Amino acid sequence: MLDILRTHIVRLFFVDFGMDIKEIQDKLAKFAEERDWDQFHSPKNLVMALTSEVGELNDLFQWLTEEQSKNSDTDEIRQELADIFIYLLRLADKLDIDIEDAVREKIEINAKKYPVDLAKGNAIKYNKR
Amino acid sequence: MLDILRTHIVRLFFVDFGMDIKEIQDKLAKFAEERDWDQFHSPKNLVMALTSEVGELNDLFQWLTEEQSKNSDTDEIRQELADIFIYLLRLADKLDIDIEDAVREKIEINAKKYPVDLAKGNAIKYNKR
Amino acid sequence: MLDILRTHIVRLFFVDFGMDIKEIQDKLAKFAEERDWDQFHSPKNLVMALTSEVGELNDLFQWLTEEQSKNSDTDEIRQELADIFIYLLRLADKLDIDIEDAVREKIEINAKKYPVDLAKGNAIKYNKR
Amino acid sequence: MLDILRTHIVRLFFVDFGMDIKEIQDKLAKFAEERDWDQFHSPKNLVMALTSEVGELNDLFQWLTEEQSKNSDTDEIRQELADIFIYLLRLADKLDIDIEDAVREKIEINAKKYPVDLAKGNAIKYNKR
Repeated sequence: MLDILRTHIVRLFFVDFGMDIKEIQDKLAKFAEERDWDQFHSPKNLVMALTSEVGELNDLFQWLTEEQSKNSDTDEIRQELADIFIYLLRLADKLDIDIEDAVREKIEINAKKYPVDLAKGNAIKYNKR
Repeated sequence: MLDILRTHIVRLFFVDFGMDIKEIQDKLAKFAEERDWDQFHSPKNLVMALTSEVGELNDLFQWLTEEQSKNSDTDEIRQELADIFIYLLRLADKLDIDIEDAVREKIEINAKKYPVDLAKGNAIKYNKR
Repeated sequence: MLDILRTHIVRLFFVDFGMDIKEIQDKLAKFAEERDWDQFHSPKNLVMALTSEVGELNDLFQWLTEEQSKNSDTDEIRQELADIFIYLLRLADKLDIDIEDAVREKIEINAKKYPVDLAKGNAIKYNKR
Repeated sequence: MLDILRTHIVRLFFVDFGMDIKEIQDKLAKFAEERDWDQFHSPKNLVMALTSEVGELNDLFQWLTEEQSKNSDTDEIRQELADIFIYLLRLADKLDIDIEDAVREKIEINAKKYPVDLAKGNAIKYNKR
């Protein structure tokens, strides 16, 4: 009963609740399967595909100054971010890694690694070089 | 009234609704602000930081065969995916790009670019070289 | 006879004549062979190794301003450039590509692609975005 | 007198002596200067340009098996290697780093880091993960 209610509420409120990672991953899996592309999507290959998209992002930013880069939400950049996201989600799916959990954990790790007072006072991370 | 109800429902059901991208982005923004790191986070710099993490991912996969790569959900790889995700979300936030919208749009674009029958029959994308 | 003369002259004048790419490639090949690493050095894997080193280079430059980057000939950066060069030469060797010829040809191609007056007047390449 | 002799010998024997890195760097510097592109060539920007080219190389290799990658000396790959080399030489020039010296030193460092018997017996580097 509660489950049914939940499903309905999900449908009603979905748009407000952020992205459903799993839903997108399923969509991408179906997309690849329908095209017989699964054979190409080993994690190793997906890392290279991700890298290739990040290379394109570098291409879009390479000659911009930092200031110019702040106002560069072009459609090309938007699509590039999407491509990177798509390959990242696909890779996590193939490796059975829960990317949401991983992100939450990593934020905890970073908080311990860079405590506010130390990080602020010394900015170790950014000044080490 | 409906808003209050929604907020409560969000709290109750959050775990079922997938990731709240915006919430994570806000957490990351606060994290940077508290440490005075915002000055370093120009989109151009964030692209390089993202690239650096993707480089580390390559390091973890470079000597693995495709087969070996299929069983490599180590903690190191898990953390690497999280790092990439974090910089990607931060970058999208700084550029005011709605990454969820961008991903949904890109999937539509890809569906038109690679129609099932054409992609399956010819596998153009993968055979062009 | 001429060959012997040439060999002697090479030895005498080597230092003036720049790098002997082939000699370095042979050294790298021997290095890998002695350690039984040849099995790992498929071109695909070497591309990932090269990428990983370029990622480290990004790490060293990511938070620097353009100005700061102009005075950053640290030993770390020096070693990183060497690593990239080493994997590039190894990759070219494995693919039987004459990297010197390729570079000279590419400079010719670029000269035609970006004629001085056009490139200078309009700076197409840098302004296209 | 000896200098004149050397110059003549260089001309006569150049083709046998490998690449003159400095000569190529000068050519690239002149190329940029003539087009007024020097303003864009900060080391930071050149790192991104190098990264972008390495991304394209990943694009060319991403769906190939390791076996297929061994027979892939296409003109596209050849040009990509040249592009990477060009940006690497340009970057080294801008940073006043002698890339030849750096490479020779790095090979020494690696020889100490991975002594033959240890590296061969245990293959530490490749098995650590």
